Amino acid sequence: MRDWIALNMTPGVGPRAAAKLLESFGRPEAVFEATRAELERLRLRPEAIESIRARDTFEKAANEIERVRALGAEVLLLDDGVYPQLLREIFDPPITLYVHGAWSACLDAPCVAIVGSRRSSTYGQNAALMLARDLAQHGVTIISGLARGIDAAAHRGSLEAGGRTVAVMGTGIDQVYPRDHKKLADEILARGGALVSEFPLETPPAPQNFPYRNRVISGLSLGVLVVEASENSGSLITARLALEQGREVFAVPGNITSRNSFGTNYLIKGAGAKLVQQWQDICAELPPEIAAELLPPEPKKKEKGLVEQLSLVPEGLSETEHSVLKLLSSDTPVHIDTLVQASRLGISELTSVLLGLEMRELIRQLPGKCFVRKL
Amino acid sequence: MRDWIALNMTPGVGPRAAAKLLESFGRPEAVFEATRAELERLRLRPEAIESIRARDTFEKAANEIERVRALGAEVLLLDDGVYPQLLREIFDPPITLYVHGAWSACLDAPCVAIVGSRRSSTYGQNAALMLARDLAQHGVTIISGLARGIDAAAHRGSLEAGGRTVAVMGTGIDQVYPRDHKKLADEILARGGALVSEFPLETPPAPQNFPYRNRVISGLSLGVLVVEASENSGSLITARLALEQGREVFAVPGNITSRNSFGTNYLIKGAGAKLVQQWQDICAELPPEIAAELLPPEPKKKEKGLVEQLSLVPEGLSETEHSVLKLLSSDTPVHIDTLVQASRLGISELTSVLLGLEMRELIRQLPGKCFVRKL
Repeated sequence: MRDWIALNMTPGVGPRAAAKLLESFGRPEAVFEATRAELERLRLRPEAIESIRARDTFEKAANEIERVRALGAEVLLLDDGVYPQLLREIFDPPITLYVHGAWSACLDAPCVAIVGSRRSSTYGQNAALMLARDLAQHGVTIISGLARGIDAAAHRGSLEAGGRTVAVMGTGIDQVYPRDHKKLADEILARGGALVSEFPLETPPAPQNFPYRNRVISGLSLGVLVVEASENSGSLITARLALEQGREVFAVPGNITSRNSFGTNYLIKGAGAKLVQQWQDICAELPPEIAAELLPPEPKKKEKGLVEQLSLVPEGLSETEHSVLKLLSSDTPVHIDTLVQASRLGISELTSVLLGLEMRELIRQLPGKCFVRKL
Repeated sequence: MRDWIALNMTPGVGPRAAAKLLESFGRPEAVFEATRAELERLRLRPEAIESIRARDTFEKAANEIERVRALGAEVLLLDDGVYPQLLREIFDPPITLYVHGAWSACLDAPCVAIVGSRRSSTYGQNAALMLARDLAQHGVTIISGLARGIDAAAHRGSLEAGGRTVAVMGTGIDQVYPRDHKKLADEILARGGALVSEFPLETPPAPQNFPYRNRVISGLSLGVLVVEASENSGSLITARLALEQGREVFAVPGNITSRNSFGTNYLIKGAGAKLVQQWQDICAELPPEIAAELLPPEPKKKEKGLVEQLSLVPEGLSETEHSVLKLLSSDTPVHIDTLVQASRLGISELTSVLLGLEMRELIRQLPGKCFVRKL
């Protein structure tokens, strides 16, 4: 553990250089036994080579281990069995991960990140709060970055619902940034959440840390929801990183006249982000086994047998809607031309009826203008 | 012409029945010469068969022709050469189209429909006005339905820009609905626009007319933009009709907390509508030859030679952005892994730089994580 932490503390060694070193030498111990020539071949920065050769992070690392223990925190190593599986799969996972609080329970649940602008509107904060609350209520862990604005609203929404939330920090886990979020960080810890960082203790909030932090936010998550983001928001970078990591990207749309929604609308328009109106829109895109767990079928339907369901007349349908619904079955798609013939309705009216049934979730359109009844 | 108009005026004969009759008998004249048995085989409504056999719309039709002339309007027939080409291609085109004003100049230009809720918010009306104005300024004809709210804002935006606009009516062209839009209708006519309807003169605003009207709005247009729509808005039906007609569907997103944006967000999320932030987003999706005409390359670039363009250093780039831009060419896509190697940047930083360049429209991402420079 000391050698892992020492390697992570080596100046000039970021996750990419660390990965290169581990690939070449197998284990951190071997890195520190490498010759200068071997290190130079890897094109490391000179200060990194000096530090590794001098082993001058060993003492600091030993010290660090004690301080982490004193905090009641832990350091996870890339090769130990408890390192978060999703994070390990990314291109450049941190080689050490400082974790404080109930990290294991948090990360064992399905995780979704909610991020956005620090300078957010009331609309954005409300949307973040509402979606975080709804997701947390259904057992999703909310990952965010402890920043002002959307991040804070996301953590708070999860706490309000009595759910789990994880703050990924761009500082050491003993430094809270911004400082006035100390209370929020304490509350996260107190209420079954966790703080996570790849940076050594006492690391200050240097601007270059935040892109690294962002990849951990998306790396820990099945999907990333961007709630508000202006044109140059760091959240857009998090979204792009998430796409590169093969994670789902979601965005909350907003008025095109709002600067705060420029970035989220842009993500939906041009970067393949899925538009989110409500928490179910996120769950529906998660891996099927997780989606099935989060979105249980309606209890009403469970109680009834299949035949009863099919003969059930949903309330509030017009006669025309009812007659069209009867033309559809739940197992054989029916083409719209067949429905035109059978219903004797004009295409315009039929389309209107079908749309109404679809919006009530009674039927579903399949590719090729075919329709089926939903169970 | 009399027989076409007479057929269109026949009670119980909508566009679908008319199409069936024309398919069977070739021309309207022949329809009125058909035997009762021939008509009954087509499963027409009894009142339609009676009326056709009695030829009781002939006199009304002759009268109608004179009154249309007195108005200074015209009736286009489905089989004449001037009937709008795009409208003729739909599943159930009107067999007669009453047109008043400069319909030919309007419909010869690229046409885009802008529709939405009658009960719209200030945001929606502003968005409709702005987008209609910008499109009209660039030579696009704005088609809408003369209704309150979004429709009116769309017509007005076009008029403000000195552009062309067409109101498709659910009444006869001599009836304005709602009545207080009489001034708007007059202004549309006075300023080079047109009024269009498939319904005979004096047809009142019966609710069942509007779905028919909606299919003409989309039928005349290359694409339909929905600006605001609540859950049960008729605009959603227009959008669905447009998709069935193979037309592009666009929607303006809005806050998820606004009922008025529920339908537009839903169209983007679930029905394949393209999100629109500005008028260019619409033009870019129109057929390539039209898009090229509406979106001319920037004049700056035109003045410079190709080589100069490529060596041009865009202003305001950071050193890192500039060095990454230099690694990209406009003809050979470069994979992100190659860029990681060549730039010696971490994947997070590189992603951030690439996103910045992409948002300034200097580079473009291709499938498979490859990047090229834009010309």
